Amino acid sequence: MKKLIQLALALFITNIAFAQEKPIKVVFDVTSGNTDVHKSAARHLRLMSETYPDSEFELVVYSSAYTMVDNKSSAAGETLREIVKNKNVSIVVCQNTMKRNDKSKEDLIPGVTTVPDGIFEIVSKQQLGWGYIKEGK
Amino acid sequence: MKKLIQLALALFITNIAFAQEKPIKVVFDVTSGNTDVHKSAARHLRLMSETYPDSEFELVVYSSAYTMVDNKSSAAGETLREIVKNKNVSIVVCQNTMKRNDKSKEDLIPGVTTVPDGIFEIVSKQQLGWGYIKEGK
Amino acid sequence: MKKLIQLALALFITNIAFAQEKPIKVVFDVTSGNTDVHKSAARHLRLMSETYPDSEFELVVYSSAYTMVDNKSSAAGETLREIVKNKNVSIVVCQNTMKRNDKSKEDLIPGVTTVPDGIFEIVSKQQLGWGYIKEGK
Repeated sequence: MKKLIQLALALFITNIAFAQEKPIKVVFDVTSGNTDVHKSAARHLRLMSETYPDSEFELVVYSSAYTMVDNKSSAAGETLREIVKNKNVSIVVCQNTMKRNDKSKEDLIPGVTTVPDGIFEIVSKQQLGWGYIKEGK
Repeated sequence: MKKLIQLALALFITNIAFAQEKPIKVVFDVTSGNTDVHKSAARHLRLMSETYPDSEFELVVYSSAYTMVDNKSSAAGETLREIVKNKNVSIVVCQNTMKRNDKSKEDLIPGVTTVPDGIFEIVSKQQLGWGYIKEGK
Repeated sequence: MKKLIQLALALFITNIAFAQEKPIKVVFDVTSGNTDVHKSAARHLRLMSETYPDSEFELVVYSSAYTMVDNKSSAAGETLREIVKNKNVSIVVCQNTMKRNDKSKEDLIPGVTTVPDGIFEIVSKQQLGWGYIKEGK
Protein backbone atom coordinates (compact mmCIF):
# COMPACT_ATOMS: atom_id res chain seq x y z
CA MET A 1 0.00 0.00 0.00
CA LYS A 2 2.82 2.36 0.92
CA LYS A 3 4.47 1.49 -2.38
CA LEU A 4 1.26 2.28 -4.25
CA ILE A 5 1.05 5.69 -2.60
CA GLN A 6 4.68 6.37 -3.48
CA LEU A 7 4.02 5.41 -7.08
CA ALA A 8 0.91 7.57 -7.24
CA LEU A 9 2.85 10.49 -5.76
CA ALA A 10 5.73 10.02 -8.18
CA LEU A 11 3.30 9.89 -11.09
CA PHE A 12 1.53 13.01 -9.82
CA ILE A 13 4.79 14.97 -9.52
CA THR A 14 5.90 13.75 -12.94
CA ASN A 15 2.60 14.94 -14.39
CA ILE A 16 2.99 18.39 -12.87
CA ALA A 17 6.52 18.67 -14.24
CA PHE A 18 5.31 17.60 -17.67
CA ALA A 19 2.35 19.90 -17.72
CA GLN A 20 4.80 22.76 -17.58
CA GLU A 21 6.65 21.63 -20.70
CA LYS A 22 6.12 23.21 -24.08
CA PRO A 23 2.83 21.98 -25.59
CA ILE A 24 3.07 19.25 -28.20
CA LYS A 25 0.76 18.01 -30.93
CA VAL A 26 0.52 14.34 -31.74
CA VAL A 27 -1.42 12.37 -34.33
CA PHE A 28 -1.97 8.69 -33.52
CA ASP A 29 -2.39 6.23 -36.42
CA VAL A 30 -4.48 3.09 -35.82
CA THR A 31 -5.05 0.57 -38.63
CA SER A 32 -5.06 -2.66 -36.65
CA GLY A 33 -8.11 -4.86 -36.17
CA ASN A 34 -6.57 -6.19 -32.95
CA THR A 35 -8.60 -5.12 -29.91
CA ASP A 36 -5.47 -5.10 -27.72
CA VAL A 37 -4.10 -2.38 -29.98
CA HIS A 38 -7.40 -0.48 -29.67
CA LYS A 39 -7.18 -0.67 -25.88
CA SER A 40 -3.56 0.43 -25.63
CA ALA A 41 -4.08 3.24 -28.16
CA ALA A 42 -7.04 4.50 -26.11
CA ARG A 43 -4.96 4.27 -22.93
CA HIS A 44 -2.12 6.27 -24.53
CA LEU A 45 -4.56 8.92 -25.71
CA ARG A 46 -6.17 9.22 -22.28
CA LEU A 47 -2.83 9.41 -20.45
CA MET A 48 -1.38 11.96 -22.84
CA SER A 49 -4.44 14.22 -22.93
CA GLU A 50 -4.67 14.24 -19.13
CA THR A 51 -0.94 14.69 -18.54
CA TYR A 52 -0.58 17.50 -21.10
CA PRO A 53 -3.81 19.51 -20.96
CA ASP A 54 -2.36 22.31 -23.12
CA SER A 55 -1.24 19.93 -25.86
CA GLU A 56 -3.35 18.58 -28.74
CA PHE A 57 -3.99 14.98 -29.73
CA GLU A 58 -5.75 13.40 -32.68
CA LEU A 59 -6.50 9.74 -33.17
CA VAL A 60 -6.99 8.68 -36.79
CA VAL A 61 -8.74 5.34 -37.31
CA TYR A 62 -8.71 3.69 -40.76
CA SER A 63 -8.05 0.50 -42.73
CA SER A 64 -8.80 -2.56 -40.55
CA ALA A 65 -9.42 -0.56 -37.35
CA TYR A 66 -13.04 0.50 -37.90
CA THR A 67 -14.47 -1.41 -34.91
CA MET A 68 -12.40 0.74 -32.55
CA VAL A 69 -14.89 3.59 -33.03
CA ASP A 70 -18.05 1.48 -33.47
CA ASN A 71 -20.45 2.48 -30.73
CA LYS A 72 -21.80 -1.03 -30.24
CA SER A 73 -18.68 -3.17 -30.54
CA SER A 74 -15.63 -1.05 -29.63
CA ALA A 75 -13.30 -2.80 -27.18
CA ALA A 76 -12.10 0.64 -26.08
CA GLY A 77 -15.53 2.25 -26.05
CA GLU A 78 -15.65 3.12 -22.38
CA THR A 79 -12.39 5.07 -22.55
CA LEU A 80 -13.11 6.70 -25.90
CA ARG A 81 -16.62 7.88 -24.95
CA GLU A 82 -15.02 9.70 -22.03
CA ILE A 83 -11.89 11.23 -23.55
CA VAL A 84 -13.50 12.38 -26.77
CA LYS A 85 -15.11 15.06 -24.56
CA ASN A 86 -11.69 16.46 -23.63
CA LYS A 87 -11.02 19.79 -25.32
CA ASN A 88 -7.57 18.69 -26.48
CA VAL A 89 -8.65 15.40 -28.07
CA SER A 90 -10.19 14.62 -31.41
CA ILE A 91 -11.01 11.18 -32.69
CA VAL A 92 -11.65 10.78 -36.41
CA VAL A 93 -12.36 7.88 -38.73
CA CYS A 94 -11.74 7.61 -42.47
CA GLN A 95 -14.87 7.86 -44.65
CA ASN A 96 -13.46 5.34 -47.13
CA THR A 97 -13.06 2.87 -44.27
CA MET A 98 -16.66 3.49 -43.17
CA LYS A 99 -17.92 2.87 -46.71
CA ARG A 100 -16.00 -0.39 -46.97
CA ASN A 101 -17.59 -1.46 -43.67
CA ASP A 102 -21.01 -0.20 -44.80
CA LYS A 103 -21.33 2.08 -41.76
CA SER A 104 -22.77 5.55 -41.24
CA LYS A 105 -22.20 8.32 -38.70
CA GLU A 106 -24.99 6.92 -36.53
CA ASP A 107 -22.86 3.84 -35.88
CA LEU A 108 -20.01 5.85 -34.36
CA ILE A 109 -19.22 6.56 -30.73
CA PRO A 110 -20.82 9.98 -30.08
CA GLY A 111 -18.23 12.71 -30.58
CA VAL A 112 -16.17 10.80 -33.13
CA THR A 113 -16.10 12.64 -36.46
CA THR A 114 -15.09 11.65 -39.98
CA VAL A 115 -12.39 12.72 -42.43
CA PRO A 116 -12.47 11.99 -46.17
CA ASP A 117 -9.18 10.08 -46.11
CA GLY A 118 -7.20 8.76 -43.12
CA ILE A 119 -3.74 8.78 -44.69
CA PHE A 120 -4.22 12.25 -46.16
CA GLU A 121 -5.34 13.48 -42.72
CA ILE A 122 -2.25 12.06 -41.00
CA VAL A 123 0.21 13.37 -43.55
CA SER A 124 -1.44 16.80 -43.47
CA LYS A 125 -0.92 16.92 -39.70
CA GLN A 126 2.71 15.88 -40.14
CA GLN A 127 3.19 18.73 -42.64
CA LEU A 128 1.87 21.10 -39.97
CA GLY A 129 4.58 19.89 -37.57
CA TRP A 130 2.56 17.41 -35.55
CA GLY A 131 4.42 14.43 -34.10
CA TYR A 132 3.41 10.99 -35.35
CA ILE A 133 2.88 7.78 -33.40
CA LYS A 134 1.91 4.53 -35.10
CA GLU A 135 -0.04 2.28 -32.76
CA GLY A 136 0.43 -1.42 -33.39
CA LYS A 137 1.81 -4.76 -32.37
CA MET B 1 -27.76 -0.92 -56.16
CA LYS B 2 -28.92 2.65 -55.67
CA LYS B 3 -26.79 2.78 -52.54
CA LEU B 4 -23.79 1.52 -54.46
CA ILE B 5 -24.21 4.25 -57.07
CA GLN B 6 -24.50 6.87 -54.35
CA LEU B 7 -21.34 5.58 -52.72
CA ALA B 8 -19.47 5.55 -56.04
CA LEU B 9 -20.65 9.10 -56.75
CA ALA B 10 -19.65 10.30 -53.28
CA LEU B 11 -16.23 8.69 -53.71
CA PHE B 12 -15.86 10.27 -57.15
CA ILE B 13 -16.72 13.75 -55.87
CA THR B 14 -14.40 13.27 -52.91
CA ASN B 15 -11.62 12.28 -55.28
CA ILE B 16 -12.12 15.38 -57.41
CA ALA B 17 -12.06 17.60 -54.34
CA PHE B 18 -8.90 15.89 -53.14
CA ALA B 19 -7.15 16.05 -56.45
CA GLN B 20 -7.32 19.81 -56.16
CA GLU B 21 -5.54 19.86 -52.80
CA LYS B 22 -1.87 20.74 -52.47
CA PRO B 23 0.26 17.76 -53.56
CA ILE B 24 1.71 15.61 -50.82
CA LYS B 25 4.61 13.18 -50.63
CA VAL B 26 4.35 10.02 -48.58
CA VAL B 27 6.77 7.22 -47.81
CA PHE B 28 5.19 3.93 -46.72
CA ASP B 29 7.22 1.59 -44.46
CA VAL B 30 6.53 -2.16 -44.67
CA THR B 31 8.50 -4.63 -42.55
CA SER B 32 5.82 -7.21 -41.82
CA GLY B 33 5.86 -10.75 -43.17
CA ASN B 34 2.06 -10.85 -42.83
CA THR B 35 0.37 -11.07 -46.24
CA ASP B 36 -2.68 -9.15 -44.97
CA VAL B 37 -0.36 -6.22 -44.30
CA HIS B 38 1.07 -6.58 -47.83
CA LYS B 39 -2.42 -6.49 -49.31
CA SER B 40 -3.62 -3.49 -47.32
CA ALA B 41 -0.38 -1.56 -47.96
CA ALA B 42 -0.79 -2.20 -51.70
CA ARG B 43 -4.43 -1.10 -51.53
CA HIS B 44 -3.44 2.13 -49.72
CA LEU B 45 -0.76 2.83 -52.30
CA ARG B 46 -3.14 2.25 -55.20
CA LEU B 47 -5.91 4.40 -53.69
CA MET B 48 -3.55 7.25 -52.82
CA SER B 49 -1.74 7.30 -56.16
CA GLU B 50 -5.03 7.30 -58.08
CA THR B 51 -6.75 9.85 -55.85
CA TYR B 52 -3.81 12.26 -55.83
CA PRO B 53 -2.21 12.03 -59.29
CA ASP B 54 0.00 15.09 -58.65
CA SER B 55 1.37 13.72 -55.37
CA GLU B 56 4.27 11.30 -54.92
CA PHE B 57 4.34 7.99 -53.11
CA GLU B 58 7.15 5.59 -52.27
CA LEU B 59 6.79 2.15 -50.74
CA VAL B 60 9.89 0.90 -48.90
CA VAL B 61 10.02 -2.84 -48.26
CA TYR B 62 12.60 -4.27 -45.84
CA SER B 63 13.20 -6.54 -42.81
CA SER B 64 10.66 -9.40 -42.83
CA ALA B 65 8.60 -8.04 -45.75
CA TYR B 66 10.68 -9.31 -48.69
CA THR B 67 7.99 -11.59 -50.13
CA MET B 68 5.77 -8.57 -50.78
CA VAL B 69 7.91 -7.72 -53.83
CA ASP B 70 8.82 -11.27 -54.86
CA ASN B 71 7.51 -11.77 -58.39
CA LYS B 72 6.57 -15.41 -57.82
CA SER B 73 5.11 -15.33 -54.32
CA SER B 74 3.82 -11.81 -53.56
CA ALA B 75 0.31 -11.82 -52.10
CA ALA B 76 -0.12 -8.28 -53.47
CA GLY B 77 1.56 -8.98 -56.80
CA GLU B 78 -1.42 -8.23 -59.00
CA THR B 79 -1.88 -4.75 -57.52
CA LEU B 80 1.83 -3.93 -57.35
CA ARG B 81 2.57 -4.98 -60.95
CA GLU B 82 -0.09 -2.50 -62.04
CA ILE B 83 0.59 0.52 -59.83
CA VAL B 84 4.37 0.43 -60.13
CA LYS B 85 3.75 1.74 -63.65
CA ASN B 86 2.10 4.91 -62.29
CA LYS B 87 4.33 7.95 -62.71
CA ASN B 88 3.81 9.02 -59.10
CA VAL B 89 4.66 5.67 -57.49
CA SER B 90 7.97 4.05 -56.71
CA ILE B 91 8.40 0.72 -54.97
CA VAL B 92 11.82 -0.07 -53.55
CA VAL B 93 13.31 -2.92 -51.54
CA CYS B 94 16.33 -2.89 -49.24
CA GLN B 95 19.47 -4.57 -50.66
CA ASN B 96 20.45 -5.88 -47.22
CA THR B 97 17.05 -7.56 -47.00
CA MET B 98 17.52 -9.13 -50.44
CA LYS B 99 20.93 -10.45 -49.44
CA ARG B 100 19.55 -12.00 -46.27
CA ASN B 101 16.88 -13.71 -48.40
CA ASP B 102 19.47 -14.69 -51.02
CA LYS B 103 17.53 -12.94 -53.78
CA SER B 104 18.58 -10.93 -56.83
CA LYS B 105 16.90 -8.27 -58.97
CA GLU B 106 15.57 -10.97 -61.31
CA ASP B 107 13.36 -12.22 -58.48
CA LEU B 108 11.55 -8.88 -58.10
CA ILE B 109 8.25 -7.75 -59.55
CA PRO B 110 9.22 -5.86 -62.74
CA GLY B 111 9.53 -2.15 -62.00
CA VAL B 112 10.52 -2.60 -58.35
CA THR B 113 13.98 -1.15 -57.72
CA THR B 114 16.46 -1.48 -54.87
CA VAL B 115 17.99 0.88 -52.31
CA PRO B 116 21.14 0.14 -50.29
CA ASP B 117 19.36 0.49 -46.94
CA GLY B 118 15.62 0.66 -46.21
CA ILE B 119 15.78 2.64 -42.97
CA PHE B 120 18.25 5.14 -44.40
CA GLU B 121 15.95 5.59 -47.42
CA ILE B 122 12.91 6.28 -45.22
CA VAL B 123 14.67 8.71 -42.92
CA SER B 124 16.18 10.54 -45.91
CA LYS B 125 12.69 11.06 -47.31
CA GLN B 126 11.48 12.30 -43.92
CA GLN B 127 14.35 14.82 -43.88
CA LEU B 128 13.13 16.07 -47.26
CA GLY B 129 9.69 16.73 -45.75
CA TRP B 130 7.90 13.60 -46.89
CA GLY B 131 5.09 12.28 -44.69
CA TYR B 132 5.56 8.87 -43.12
CA ILE B 133 3.09 6.01 -42.77
CA LYS B 134 4.02 2.75 -41.07
CA GLU B 135 1.99 -0.14 -42.42
CA GLY B 136 1.33 -2.90 -39.89
CA LYS B 137 -1.01 -4.80 -37.65
CA MET C 1 31.56 -19.59 -50.76
CA LYS C 2 32.56 -17.29 -53.61
CA LYS C 3 29.06 -15.83 -53.53
CA LEU C 4 29.34 -15.24 -49.78
CA ILE C 5 32.62 -13.35 -50.25
CA GLN C 6 31.06 -11.26 -53.01
CA LEU C 7 28.11 -10.45 -50.78
CA ALA C 8 30.38 -9.54 -47.87
CA LEU C 9 32.47 -7.34 -50.15
CA ALA C 10 29.40 -5.63 -51.59
CA LEU C 11 28.10 -5.01 -48.09
CA PHE C 12 31.49 -3.65 -47.01
CA ILE C 13 31.67 -1.24 -49.95
CA THR C 14 28.08 -0.17 -49.37
CA ASN C 15 28.91 0.53 -45.75
CA ILE C 16 31.90 2.66 -46.65
CA ALA C 17 29.82 4.65 -49.13
CA PHE C 18 27.12 5.14 -46.52
CA ALA C 19 29.50 6.15 -43.79
CA GLN C 20 30.41 9.14 -45.92
CA GLU C 21 26.81 10.36 -46.16
CA LYS C 22 25.48 13.21 -44.09
CA PRO C 23 24.83 12.02 -40.52
CA ILE C 24 21.26 11.19 -39.62
CA LYS C 25 19.35 10.90 -36.36
CA VAL C 26 16.71 8.24 -35.90
CA VAL C 27 14.36 7.39 -33.05
CA PHE C 28 13.00 3.83 -33.06
CA ASP C 29 9.61 3.17 -31.42
CA VAL C 30 8.96 -0.30 -29.93
CA THR C 31 5.66 -1.09 -28.21
CA SER C 32 5.23 -4.72 -29.20
CA GLY C 33 5.41 -7.63 -26.77
CA ASN C 34 6.43 -9.91 -29.65
CA THR C 35 10.00 -11.16 -29.22
CA ASP C 36 10.50 -11.34 -32.99
CA VAL C 37 9.92 -7.58 -33.09
CA HIS C 38 12.45 -7.15 -30.26
CA LYS C 39 15.04 -9.13 -32.19
CA SER C 40 14.56 -7.34 -35.48
CA ALA C 41 14.53 -3.91 -33.78
CA ALA C 42 17.82 -4.79 -32.06
CA ARG C 43 19.28 -5.98 -35.35
CA HIS C 44 18.24 -2.74 -37.09
CA LEU C 45 19.78 -0.68 -34.30
CA ARG C 46 23.05 -2.63 -34.43
CA LEU C 47 23.31 -2.44 -38.23
CA MET C 48 22.51 1.27 -38.34
CA SER C 49 24.86 2.27 -35.51
CA GLU C 50 27.73 0.30 -37.05
CA THR C 51 27.10 1.44 -40.61
CA TYR C 52 26.72 5.11 -39.68
CA PRO C 53 29.15 5.77 -36.82
CA ASP C 54 28.68 9.54 -37.04
CA SER C 55 24.89 9.32 -36.85
CA GLU C 56 22.75 9.05 -33.72
CA PHE C 57 20.16 6.45 -32.80
CA GLU C 58 17.73 6.15 -29.93
CA LEU C 59 15.50 3.19 -29.15
CA VAL C 60 12.40 4.03 -27.08
CA VAL C 61 10.71 1.07 -25.39
CA TYR C 62 7.21 1.47 -23.90
CA SER C 63 3.67 0.08 -23.68
CA SER C 64 3.77 -3.74 -24.10
CA ALA C 65 7.50 -3.91 -24.95
CA TYR C 66 9.01 -3.82 -21.45
CA THR C 67 10.59 -7.29 -21.59
CA MET C 68 12.83 -6.13 -24.45
CA VAL C 69 15.02 -4.29 -21.93
CA ASP C 70 14.60 -6.68 -19.00
CA ASN C 71 18.06 -7.95 -18.09
CA LYS C 72 16.85 -11.44 -17.23
CA SER C 73 14.27 -12.13 -19.91
CA SER C 74 15.07 -9.98 -22.97
CA ALA C 75 15.02 -11.98 -26.21
CA ALA C 76 17.39 -9.40 -27.69
CA GLY C 77 19.59 -9.09 -24.59
CA GLU C 78 22.81 -10.27 -26.14
CA THR C 79 22.66 -7.67 -28.91
CA LEU C 80 21.41 -4.84 -26.68
CA ARG C 81 24.04 -5.37 -23.98
CA GLU C 82 26.67 -4.92 -26.67
CA ILE C 83 25.32 -2.01 -28.72
CA VAL C 84 24.22 0.10 -25.78
CA LYS C 85 27.95 0.71 -25.28
CA ASN C 86 28.23 2.36 -28.70
CA LYS C 87 28.69 6.11 -28.41
CA ASN C 88 25.98 6.80 -30.98
CA VAL C 89 23.29 4.62 -29.39
CA SER C 90 20.94 5.23 -26.52
CA ILE C 91 18.29 2.83 -25.31
CA VAL C 92 15.56 4.20 -23.06
CA VAL C 93 12.44 2.82 -21.45
CA CYS C 94 9.32 4.66 -20.29
CA GLN C 95 8.98 5.07 -16.51
CA ASN C 96 5.20 4.69 -16.69
CA THR C 97 5.73 1.34 -18.43
CA MET C 98 8.17 0.25 -15.73
CA LYS C 99 5.68 1.17 -13.02
CA ARG C 100 2.90 -0.79 -14.69
CA ASN C 101 5.26 -3.79 -14.80
CA ASP C 102 6.40 -3.16 -11.22
CA LYS C 103 10.07 -2.95 -12.26
CA SER C 104 12.97 -0.81 -11.11
CA LYS C 105 16.23 0.32 -12.71
CA GLU C 106 18.00 -2.71 -11.26
CA ASP C 107 15.93 -4.93 -13.55
CA LEU C 108 17.18 -3.26 -16.72
CA ILE C 109 19.98 -4.28 -19.06
CA PRO C 110 23.01 -2.28 -17.84
CA GLY C 111 23.32 0.93 -19.82
CA VAL C 112 19.59 1.26 -20.54
CA THR C 113 18.19 4.47 -19.03
CA THR C 114 14.69 5.73 -18.34
CA VAL C 115 12.55 8.61 -19.59
CA PRO C 116 9.41 9.89 -17.82
CA ASP C 117 7.17 9.25 -20.83
CA GLY C 118 7.89 7.22 -23.99
CA ILE C 119 5.53 9.03 -26.36
CA PHE C 120 6.64 12.46 -25.15
CA GLU C 121 10.27 11.40 -25.69
CA ILE C 122 9.60 10.27 -29.26
CA VAL C 123 7.62 13.34 -30.25
CA SER C 124 10.26 15.61 -28.71
CA LYS C 125 12.91 13.95 -30.89
CA GLN C 126 10.69 14.37 -33.95
CA GLN C 127 10.35 18.08 -33.14
CA LEU C 128 14.15 18.30 -33.13
CA GLY C 129 14.22 16.88 -36.66
CA TRP C 130 14.97 13.26 -35.87
CA GLY C 131 13.64 10.63 -38.27
CA TYR C 132 11.09 8.17 -36.91
CA ILE C 133 10.85 4.41 -37.44
CA LYS C 134 8.06 2.35 -35.89
CA GLU C 135 9.15 -1.23 -35.29
CA GLY C 136 6.37 -3.78 -35.54
CA LYS C 137 4.67 -6.62 -37.34
